[in-house]
Amino acid sequence: MSERPVGGQPESGPAGRRRAGRRPGSADTRGQILAAARETFSEKGFDKATIRSIARQAGVDPALVHHYFASKEGMFVAAMELPVNPDIVIPMITSGPREEVGERLTRFVLTMTSSAEARQPVLALARTAMTNDRMATMIREFVAHAILDRVAEALRIPPLRMDAAFAQLFGVVLMRYVVKLEPLASVDIEELVELLAPTIQRYLDGPR
Amino acid sequence: MSERPVGGQPESGPAGRRRAGRRPGSADTRGQILAAARETFSEKGFDKATIRSIARQAGVDPALVHHYFASKEGMFVAAMELPVNPDIVIPMITSGPREEVGERLTRFVLTMTSSAEARQPVLALARTAMTNDRMATMIREFVAHAILDRVAEALRIPPLRMDAAFAQLFGVVLMRYVVKLEPLASVDIEELVELLAPTIQRYLDGPR
Repeated sequence: MSERPVGGQPESGPAGRRRAGRRPGSADTRGQILAAARETFSEKGFDKATIRSIARQAGVDPALVHHYFASKEGMFVAAMELPVNPDIVIPMITSGPREEVGERLTRFVLTMTSSAEARQPVLALARTAMTNDRMATMIREFVAHAILDRVAEALRIPPLRMDAAFAQLFGVVLMRYVVKLEPLASVDIEELVELLAPTIQRYLDGPR
Repeated sequence: MSERPVGGQPESGPAGRRRAGRRPGSADTRGQILAAARETFSEKGFDKATIRSIARQAGVDPALVHHYFASKEGMFVAAMELPVNPDIVIPMITSGPREEVGERLTRFVLTMTSSAEARQPVLALARTAMTNDRMATMIREFVAHAILDRVAEALRIPPLRMDAAFAQLFGVVLMRYVVKLEPLASVDIEELVELLAPTIQRYLDGPR
């Protein structure tokens, strides 16, 4: 059973054996883990899903999951096809001069979402959160624990200030790319950075 | 034909005559105008819909539409069951001390959306805008021309600053009531006003 491909087709192998044992890595093991991750995250939420439960769902050894993904956060990012991994981006943004962190964060969010390819999965998740309570929970837990808590901790600011900064940036991305409110939708990124960065800086400068 | 009720039921009168003539006001004329307004706004957008075209769609005289609704804005508010009419609220917020306009606007938005009944139609429109391009156009035109342009004009600020303030407040409402991000979702309104009002004030204080 080691060479059995693992797409979605039951005809690729005896159906009864598909999740019975633990399979070693194959060309599609990563895809199989990601499919299991999507299923587990949407069912249990981000917090309650574990690498162990995702491995069980995929029918592979947890060590194999660790081999492909360094963290649960990284697995979520890959499963949802998100454009950036907070494990990598957050240290980049929170290190460097403290008085410019608002500008770095604002420019990063606006530059990242300026690519339609990067923006699409982010907006897809946002749409899902708007219309499906269970998915809203999953997304909330990921945003809170994989992104906002870690930035707030790195900068030692109260979580409410982090939420306000996130709401500002998310609101702008939504108005710019979904609602297409003018002039917000057409103005260039640097003009937006100039307008928004002081707001974000003020939130992040707050009482620690 | 004057007493004919006008629900959505074709059996309430000869189908061929339903939109043929102009009917005088009856108990349900208002509901009939609102149904026509919903149809016309979603088809043509807010800007291109006219009182005349809505009257035609409803099969009534434009004067009758004016009798029920003072403005196109008021008709949109009634048709979408929005909790507040910008014709009434905007002058209330933009008059009064200029240095407190950020606080008045922030408190108004947070207090209004704290009622589930008032919030529901606003969030329903937001959901629609996220998933349907034509409805997004209608909502964008209403928000831009019936709300933001008028506040920006009253305060003599560039529209981009108004957009940024709106994105901040809308982002907070979304995170508080849809995504339910904590602590933003549970904190009391006055604490939020204290945190957000200076941001809104800064945008509204901008170069005129």
